Amino acid sequence: MNEAQQEAITKVAEGVSQETLDQAIQSINGDMGALWIIIAAILVFFMQAGFTLVEVGFTRSKNSGNIIMKNIMDLCIGSLLFWAVGYGIMYGSDTVLGGFFRTSPSDQGYFFFSATDWYNLLFQTVFCATAATIVSGAIAERTKFSTYLIFSAVLTTIIYPISGSWYWPFDDSAWLNVAGFVDFAGSSVVHAVGGSAALVAAILVGPRIGKYKDGKVNAIPGHNMTYGALGVLILWLGWFGFNGGSQLAFGGNDTIAVGSVIINTNIAAAIGAVAAMVLSWLKYGKPDISMTLNGALAGLVGITAGCGAVNAWGALAIGLICGITVVLSIEFIDRKLKIDDPVGAISVHGVCGFLGTVLVGVFALDGGLLSGGGAGLLWVQFYGSLAYIVWAAVASFIVLFILKKTIGLRVTQEEEMDGLDIHEHDSSAYPEFTINDK
Amino acid sequence: MNEAQQEAITKVAEGVSQETLDQAIQSINGDMGALWIIIAAILVFFMQAGFTLVEVGFTRSKNSGNIIMKNIMDLCIGSLLFWAVGYGIMYGSDTVLGGFFRTSPSDQGYFFFSATDWYNLLFQTVFCATAATIVSGAIAERTKFSTYLIFSAVLTTIIYPISGSWYWPFDDSAWLNVAGFVDFAGSSVVHAVGGSAALVAAILVGPRIGKYKDGKVNAIPGHNMTYGALGVLILWLGWFGFNGGSQLAFGGNDTIAVGSVIINTNIAAAIGAVAAMVLSWLKYGKPDISMTLNGALAGLVGITAGCGAVNAWGALAIGLICGITVVLSIEFIDRKLKIDDPVGAISVHGVCGFLGTVLVGVFALDGGLLSGGGAGLLWVQFYGSLAYIVWAAVASFIVLFILKKTIGLRVTQEEEMDGLDIHEHDSSAYPEFTINDK
Amino acid sequence: MNEAQQEAITKVAEGVSQETLDQAIQSINGDMGALWIIIAAILVFFMQAGFTLVEVGFTRSKNSGNIIMKNIMDLCIGSLLFWAVGYGIMYGSDTVLGGFFRTSPSDQGYFFFSATDWYNLLFQTVFCATAATIVSGAIAERTKFSTYLIFSAVLTTIIYPISGSWYWPFDDSAWLNVAGFVDFAGSSVVHAVGGSAALVAAILVGPRIGKYKDGKVNAIPGHNMTYGALGVLILWLGWFGFNGGSQLAFGGNDTIAVGSVIINTNIAAAIGAVAAMVLSWLKYGKPDISMTLNGALAGLVGITAGCGAVNAWGALAIGLICGITVVLSIEFIDRKLKIDDPVGAISVHGVCGFLGTVLVGVFALDGGLLSGGGAGLLWVQFYGSLAYIVWAAVASFIVLFILKKTIGLRVTQEEEMDGLDIHEHDSSAYPEFTINDK
Repeated sequence: MNEAQQEAITKVAEGVSQETLDQAIQSINGDMGALWIIIAAILVFFMQAGFTLVEVGFTRSKNSGNIIMKNIMDLCIGSLLFWAVGYGIMYGSDTVLGGFFRTSPSDQGYFFFSATDWYNLLFQTVFCATAATIVSGAIAERTKFSTYLIFSAVLTTIIYPISGSWYWPFDDSAWLNVAGFVDFAGSSVVHAVGGSAALVAAILVGPRIGKYKDGKVNAIPGHNMTYGALGVLILWLGWFGFNGGSQLAFGGNDTIAVGSVIINTNIAAAIGAVAAMVLSWLKYGKPDISMTLNGALAGLVGITAGCGAVNAWGALAIGLICGITVVLSIEFIDRKLKIDDPVGAISVHGVCGFLGTVLVGVFALDGGLLSGGGAGLLWVQFYGSLAYIVWAAVASFIVLFILKKTIGLRVTQEEEMDGLDIHEHDSSAYPEFTINDK
Repeated sequence: MNEAQQEAITKVAEGVSQETLDQAIQSINGDMGALWIIIAAILVFFMQAGFTLVEVGFTRSKNSGNIIMKNIMDLCIGSLLFWAVGYGIMYGSDTVLGGFFRTSPSDQGYFFFSATDWYNLLFQTVFCATAATIVSGAIAERTKFSTYLIFSAVLTTIIYPISGSWYWPFDDSAWLNVAGFVDFAGSSVVHAVGGSAALVAAILVGPRIGKYKDGKVNAIPGHNMTYGALGVLILWLGWFGFNGGSQLAFGGNDTIAVGSVIINTNIAAAIGAVAAMVLSWLKYGKPDISMTLNGALAGLVGITAGCGAVNAWGALAIGLICGITVVLSIEFIDRKLKIDDPVGAISVHGVCGFLGTVLVGVFALDGGLLSGGGAGLLWVQFYGSLAYIVWAAVASFIVLFILKKTIGLRVTQEEEMDGLDIHEHDSSAYPEFTINDK
Repeated sequence: MNEAQQEAITKVAEGVSQETLDQAIQSINGDMGALWIIIAAILVFFMQAGFTLVEVGFTRSKNSGNIIMKNIMDLCIGSLLFWAVGYGIMYGSDTVLGGFFRTSPSDQGYFFFSATDWYNLLFQTVFCATAATIVSGAIAERTKFSTYLIFSAVLTTIIYPISGSWYWPFDDSAWLNVAGFVDFAGSSVVHAVGGSAALVAAILVGPRIGKYKDGKVNAIPGHNMTYGALGVLILWLGWFGFNGGSQLAFGGNDTIAVGSVIINTNIAAAIGAVAAMVLSWLKYGKPDISMTLNGALAGLVGITAGCGAVNAWGALAIGLICGITVVLSIEFIDRKLKIDDPVGAISVHGVCGFLGTVLVGVFALDGGLLSGGGAGLLWVQFYGSLAYIVWAAVASFIVLFILKKTIGLRVTQEEEMDGLDIHEHDSSAYPEFTINDK
């Protein structure tokens, strides 16, 4: 053996094995995934601005400041309480009451989060804030601010984290995960939960003064459609993070998956808006602006469960069905059930959240009815989503019933007529502008 | 040979070769590029909100809902039709009519896109939606909604994809690519095409009532400068994705290139705004707000072709020239040609798109006139950009002429006076606010 | 030695050493860091829209166009001059006057930046633009536009870059870096500098007409709280880039650090808003909207120095203290000192910037008072932040004093009463809307 060969052999000891390279690649992919999750979380955070604008735009100017305060406080309270308590209930290492919720010894870092995967806490926090903010739209223009804050705190600390714990830890203790339930980014876990709480809250709070009078249903138009449209575009933007980030990884096959998820999201939103516009055109003779905007949101909510399980055709079908449904549902809830939901949150998040979850059972490429998977998945999707709706409804009812019997849910008649801004906040959102009060 | 040596030699077989490492690095860079393209696409998506706000802000409040509907539908129709048809015409594997457009066997996944590089479809889709939305501003406040929808569909399905096919597949079948044409992110392919279509549309639709009366040119101010400014800042933001993402890669030299592209973009926007402000100050005695905002957009459109080919000094020069030109062009089109373009889209996107493309021939570091490259590149840039303008003008004219002779381009005089919101959508964007109607 | 062994030995020469792999990983991490910095810079850029909306919303409608122009020009002038001059003064290779500022031979690429780390120039440019824009809010509604432009140019070219040079090159020539000063993303370097300049400017310009009359302090409410709220949410969003991007790296431990920084940022903003709301509720009997919004900003400014040095509990404490302080400070400056700051910029950026810097000395995990580090860090934080405030105050005073004695700081009384939009820009931001002028 000559010197060169010996040197070469010595070098081998310093050489890199496939295993070392694989670990390096895995670590890099982990970082790339974290980067994507952080960016996605920032996009989801921005949805708070979208919700605020939609709710402000779709309601009257005398209540704009109050709506802003509710949305800001949703985010603030949610951020703090989910860090302190919610995350532990949702992801804690131990299950309680047969998996009803989770907990964890205090040194594990789940409560008052202190682990190292901060990007994960961030992503889950902004999801939690989204669930909370859905309710505020449905009970806008008449609910007491202090009452709302308490309900929002309970929702972000208990109701939503328990919902999440049933599925998203993706382990053997999460009963819906075990059952094979599919809800990629939360059509049910986030939106149907928020929508169901919104339904119960809207019923308990009751309609706005003047909404239902002498057997007539009166439309109460919002004050700024530009805010509404900007809000919807910001929500659409944020949804790319909401759904795309829920892949929770990036690199290799995850890159393909994230791309597909985002395209599905975009297609469902687009066809949802077109479907709602066409249906409103056929029904009312004119293409309706707020229905079109809600159609886009309906498509987005609907595709949230299945965006990782269907192809573009499935996304097209789900978006189409949700875009049509939201128009019919808003009308039905407003005119037949006479439940007053100023922004259509119950239909958009509740009805389309449920529908989108169930439709995964039809259109999923793996196990869906149309792919020859039989009715098994469809059944799981149905009862899983129903479980979320029932849970959110029951829990919200208990909390709101107690609040109603104690501090009250609603502002006085005078406060409602004058607007919540002046009475609740001693303020006006547009003090200089002349308003035709209705 | 001792045992240790033998073990070492055995280990060699498991070792990693340079080729394996290179492949791993390439794959990681590919993923990082995909991540950047997805983020860039999301930024470009947000430009839809920017366009909406600019157009709403620069026009009258009685038409805001209609403008919102047009912009939302641009995006929806574009997203659906580009997925179904446009992408295949633009990137299909086979050329048709000597490279006039492209097509592809149905199993290749170009039509009703079904390949795996979803991030690529996403990026191209939001570009397509951008091209479509340029037109809506120029014909705002008087165009029939149904007519607009049809034209927007043709633009996103045929006119823009054919434009794209001439250059952006970057292969031997793309004639402008073969010719050495340089249009990094689409000063011509997107903006001059949109601007040229806008010009033809504005001529065919005709000016708004009251714009040109008794030989006088009347300014019709928009209703909300804050929307306009927010829109411009959102567009500027989105442009970092528009131009930066067009590198279509990240890592190594691409990292340097993306950084340089974004700095060039920012410098051109900044000097464009300053130049337009100073010129308006000199001409009218006051620094004009809408001219300054359009100056920033002019710089952005202008640098879009050359942002990867020039250095910061070149960006400064291009932005400066475009910022000055846009003021002169808006005046010329408004006062001399008497073509009514409420938001200045023809000047911003058409004129500065053309100008920015041609100026690459002057300032390109590789082949530009000032770098001693002679007039060769300049000539290609000139006829290439002209080809885009002529194509978009001719195609738009045919479509709009047919629409004019059939369903009509324009709302009735009464509808225009009352506002399109009330007649086209049975709605009002700001129902509570007292408006001084002009 | 058999053939297989020989082949294996030959292969060794082509094999990859650990060193090569480490270099590859380092290079990839460098690119991932650059990607994160670019995205963070884009988020910080968007803060310009946030500042614009907050300032427009918190002031009267007759000055909106002027505020828009100031904010756009801040950005434009800052982008151009920081590229040309500021970056070289801040990061140049040679120190001048014992480290008072920096310079560099022209071929090094610091002035008229021409190096390859463009992402770094981008990130620093948007920081510079942020510092400049803080001042405009405090002197809104009465300052001459031309004067403001000159001051903004000096701030971005000289005042801020000199501030930066004392610390952020992170080398032995940066005296505050040597001293052990900790200001992660610029509570002092950016915010206290901006706030201190704002204080001096607000004093020199004087209060708005009608603000202090017959010994009474009159509130002058802003015209659009929705803009204010959207602005704050955009600023909050951008702050994730402002603080998170200041890690200046991504991958491995940097991934954990970035996540922690962003969570700290979010927690401080949330508790800041809650604290300000509760305090305003206790003091005035109602939860105040603008105080709540400023509370969020106060938490954000406060945590900017320490977000990389404290844990979530520290962020909670700093946000809480700043949220309470900002309410007291705004009142004190407005009612006791009678300095008119329409948007509260002095309190938010100046006071909370100083406070947040100092509190690092209390809550830092490494060297903080509560971690048993003694008073050493606290002392450095105190005099370091004070040095920034004094520098910005003195430099601003000199510039503004000269401007006052030459072209003047303030518009005429008539111009102020009618609004700056009509006199400075021959325009109106909302020409159609009926305004109740006050």
